[in-house]
Amino acid sequence: MHPFSVTIIGSGNVATHFAKAFQQAGATIRQVYSRNPANARKLAKLTGAKATGSMARIESGADLYLVAVKDDAIAGLVKQLDAGDGIVVHTAGSVSIQALEGFSRYGIFYPLQTFSKKAAVRFEGLPLCIEASDKKTFRMLESLAELLGAKVYRLDSEQRAAAHLAAVFACNFSNHLYAVAEKLLHKYKLPFSLIRPLIEETAHKALVQSPSDSQTGPAFRNDKAVMKKHLDALRKNPGWKEIYRLLSADIYRNRKSRNS
Amino acid sequence: MHPFSVTIIGSGNVATHFAKAFQQAGATIRQVYSRNPANARKLAKLTGAKATGSMARIESGADLYLVAVKDDAIAGLVKQLDAGDGIVVHTAGSVSIQALEGFSRYGIFYPLQTFSKKAAVRFEGLPLCIEASDKKTFRMLESLAELLGAKVYRLDSEQRAAAHLAAVFACNFSNHLYAVAEKLLHKYKLPFSLIRPLIEETAHKALVQSPSDSQTGPAFRNDKAVMKKHLDALRKNPGWKEIYRLLSADIYRNRKSRNS
Repeated sequence: MHPFSVTIIGSGNVATHFAKAFQQAGATIRQVYSRNPANARKLAKLTGAKATGSMARIESGADLYLVAVKDDAIAGLVKQLDAGDGIVVHTAGSVSIQALEGFSRYGIFYPLQTFSKKAAVRFEGLPLCIEASDKKTFRMLESLAELLGAKVYRLDSEQRAAAHLAAVFACNFSNHLYAVAEKLLHKYKLPFSLIRPLIEETAHKALVQSPSDSQTGPAFRNDKAVMKKHLDALRKNPGWKEIYRLLSADIYRNRKSRNS
Repeated sequence: MHPFSVTIIGSGNVATHFAKAFQQAGATIRQVYSRNPANARKLAKLTGAKATGSMARIESGADLYLVAVKDDAIAGLVKQLDAGDGIVVHTAGSVSIQALEGFSRYGIFYPLQTFSKKAAVRFEGLPLCIEASDKKTFRMLESLAELLGAKVYRLDSEQRAAAHLAAVFACNFSNHLYAVAEKLLHKYKLPFSLIRPLIEETAHKALVQSPSDSQTGPAFRNDKAVMKKHLDALRKNPGWKEIYRLLSADIYRNRKSRNS
């Protein structure tokens, strides 16, 4: 691929990790936009780019414009963007490709991974969901994804929204259940480290088999005595009690439907 | 430690993995009891023990009697057990140590890990929650745990019940959310492999930091537009919709209480 130039719209976690990854892969980062000029300068400095706090200052001529901002900010920002012949992509899970229809070439670069500012992101093997305005653009985005070491999945906007929803269950909600567990342990003066090997093993099993096949626990065994004790222990936290009740019921329902 | 003998009451996952681990650590497995004689014979054969389907045939004289059966079967079985001077332990998370008060020495060996028949269990570093009738017995159980390579935690019965409850949230419920995610993906003809790196990274983060500190997603950002889309996508599954709603509300509540 010829020397490739990228302009980054946004300065959050996703924008930052993509900017760094593109630069490391040999691309030139031309400009970084953020509505917060200080953030734009910070990321621009990190990647040898120019910073701007004004969409009017974004220059045409970059090969790729990567829009990595909050979902509801995408439509407003891209209206102000003159991308010329460049490809415009956004990185959102739940925003349709139609939001970019005004450009000559456009697409989606949705990474199915949790990004945080502190932790480094491994792009090697990162699932990248791609959608594009046309075949040529798709192939271009695919090459770029491979340049980053990512694993390409071709998803339309409806599939991408479903993948995003699945990710909320598997990642955001699971993490919150870890947090609930941590609070329960602390309440009884127990360290979170007590259940870390369990968390590790549970995730590991899901990596090698179907999670439906490795379900265990009182709800799966329909062990009513244990569930009653647990609900009783949660009586002072009606929110957690209801979460326990609903998830247990769904585990049991799922077991029945599998066995029938 | 002198040559050590263990009799195993039970033939399920926990019984099987402990029997093998004790044997590999140099102990003699004397007898295996199961109400299903074929299962008893199978595990006995695997560990060089004698099998029995009758509690009356359990001989006294073993150093340790490990009771690894369903919670509600423990009380009935131990009533029939003549353990002499041997230590009697059960492996349940939610059964009080009082269930064993009839014996001269007794305790708890509660492993905080998910066991399945197929997958090998790594005893190295396995969190083992121990409680005992007396100091000498505690030290004995501690030595045995270390012999297996496990990591000893001293928990009383109330703490153990809390740890079990925390494990249900962090392991059983998380795994069920993986299963829900898998179903959502399959509905849109997407492979579960799409979110495996995300599951791995989410668990990995919990191993190195507090899960409260790494929460992300629409509920945490209070992104109402995305949550509305998700709830709408779940309209045909009221159970999942309610799980989505409850967990999102709890994530947001938790964020607020942390910030205040």
